[in-house]
Amino acid sequence: MTLPELLDYASVFVFALTGALVASRAQLDIIGFAFVASLTAVGGGTLRDVLLNRDPVFWIAQPALIGVAVAAATLVFFTAHLFESRLKVLTWLDALALSVAVPAGVGVALAAGHHWAVTLIMGIATGCFGGLMRDVVCNEVPLVLKQGELYVTAAFAGAAAAVLALHLTAPGPALLICAAVTFALRAGSLTFGWRLPVYKARPPRV
Amino acid sequence: MTLPELLDYASVFVFALTGALVASRAQLDIIGFAFVASLTAVGGGTLRDVLLNRDPVFWIAQPALIGVAVAAATLVFFTAHLFESRLKVLTWLDALALSVAVPAGVGVALAAGHHWAVTLIMGIATGCFGGLMRDVVCNEVPLVLKQGELYVTAAFAGAAAAVLALHLTAPGPALLICAAVTFALRAGSLTFGWRLPVYKARPPRV
Amino acid sequence: MTLPELLDYASVFVFALTGALVASRAQLDIIGFAFVASLTAVGGGTLRDVLLNRDPVFWIAQPALIGVAVAAATLVFFTAHLFESRLKVLTWLDALALSVAVPAGVGVALAAGHHWAVTLIMGIATGCFGGLMRDVVCNEVPLVLKQGELYVTAAFAGAAAAVLALHLTAPGPALLICAAVTFALRAGSLTFGWRLPVYKARPPRV
Repeated sequence: MTLPELLDYASVFVFALTGALVASRAQLDIIGFAFVASLTAVGGGTLRDVLLNRDPVFWIAQPALIGVAVAAATLVFFTAHLFESRLKVLTWLDALALSVAVPAGVGVALAAGHHWAVTLIMGIATGCFGGLMRDVVCNEVPLVLKQGELYVTAAFAGAAAAVLALHLTAPGPALLICAAVTFALRAGSLTFGWRLPVYKARPPRV
Repeated sequence: MTLPELLDYASVFVFALTGALVASRAQLDIIGFAFVASLTAVGGGTLRDVLLNRDPVFWIAQPALIGVAVAAATLVFFTAHLFESRLKVLTWLDALALSVAVPAGVGVALAAGHHWAVTLIMGIATGCFGGLMRDVVCNEVPLVLKQGELYVTAAFAGAAAAVLALHLTAPGPALLICAAVTFALRAGSLTFGWRLPVYKARPPRV
Repeated sequence: MTLPELLDYASVFVFALTGALVASRAQLDIIGFAFVASLTAVGGGTLRDVLLNRDPVFWIAQPALIGVAVAAATLVFFTAHLFESRLKVLTWLDALALSVAVPAGVGVALAAGHHWAVTLIMGIATGCFGGLMRDVVCNEVPLVLKQGELYVTAAFAGAAAAVLALHLTAPGPALLICAAVTFALRAGSLTFGWRLPVYKARPPRV
């Protein structure tokens, strides 16, 4: 199994956990858990593959990935009540999934020899769109656009770090750097409140 | 006309009716009716075709399908006020559309020789995503995720029945079994309240 | 640069401005501005290219387009507070973007030799889906479905005008006519309240 494939598996599993946690907040049944978990798990990577015209899409080539997502959904269905704060677990699992999905997107674009800007965007899209679809479908405020948190920024910084690191090192280490930078920024934002200045409408000048 | 093509036509017509009914709840004009009806009618099948990299997408190969959707929208625009409960008509038409769209998805995946798990997913996706897009775009609570009703479950059971029936029979009867199982479960859920147990957060242990 | 390419550039720039204005209403940071602006800017054209199975998608062929969207986002981030009514600016820029994106969609479908109905739909889809994605992701009421305004209708009329004009003239002038008709109807709706009759449920007959 190649590193990008391994990243796809890891990203599917962790994103599926987050999807199932959102399903638990919506009080769905177990098939509903599997549906939202699968959508979240493969959403970002599917967008990447459709945009890059990869045939077949990654989970059609390896249907076992859907089994991974369903297993994650089942696990959450029977254990989610053990957690004191499902929202907190969800947020941190989502941070982990983001940190795995961004290098998964970058890795695939790299392997296909795309322009660095396209590589950057595939990292961001693969990282952000699974969670975005999850939140839009389940009527939650998208985590990806929550004001005053680093999310797209963490994905952007991780993907940019990978693109830069490739001038100095091999793809493998570059993808690890990508994951580390993404997670560090997202975790720092959750723990220490790191943020960029947000847009504020100034009061009209008198 | 092959059976999958016939299913595509039927599914387009009935889903278009549901899209137009949602448009009537949003009080759109006739072009808005046609827009939402078309989106609902071809949404699921388009996702299926893009995922399976079919070229061209089914309604680009047969633009008359869009004419069918527009005709359905026009019909609803001028007659919807005749129904006492548009919501009830909408729910039942949606059940019918689901029961036609799931075998339409299964049939296309079968004909392309895909893995049974991919076939299963194409059935579910083709059945569920048209209505999902309709509800997300029109800001309705997605019918597909309504708590305590069989919806994705009906699609899943119908698609699974088709996959199993194929070991015993030809594709044609298998698709009919698929439609019957899907409709039976969805209708049973609407009429008798059939449901799976939903996730409930237990109160914290003291 | 061909006329359709030029329309793609213009449409990306103006749609990116509208995306950034919506981001300003959600008080995002600058990376959030760039994310929403890029999504809005390339959303409709990406859908068109995926549906028509164009490989590569237009902005993957010309990554500079993403640079244009990011520049537009940056511009808005630092200047949006200068406008008295950001909503009004947003609405009019969106009208302009629509009038550029519809001919961009029509032009690409024409060049690929598609059926007139497919050409019509590509014009509407390219024009409407960027803004639709923007509004769905940012939790705004979709401008495209706002009751009692010509929006999809303007796109439809513009695309239909282009399809008809092609019987009399070359593609270049037909695309200009398309832009003019789209803008005239949308602007007329915003300025003079032009509208089509909307669906109204009649009171039940006694």
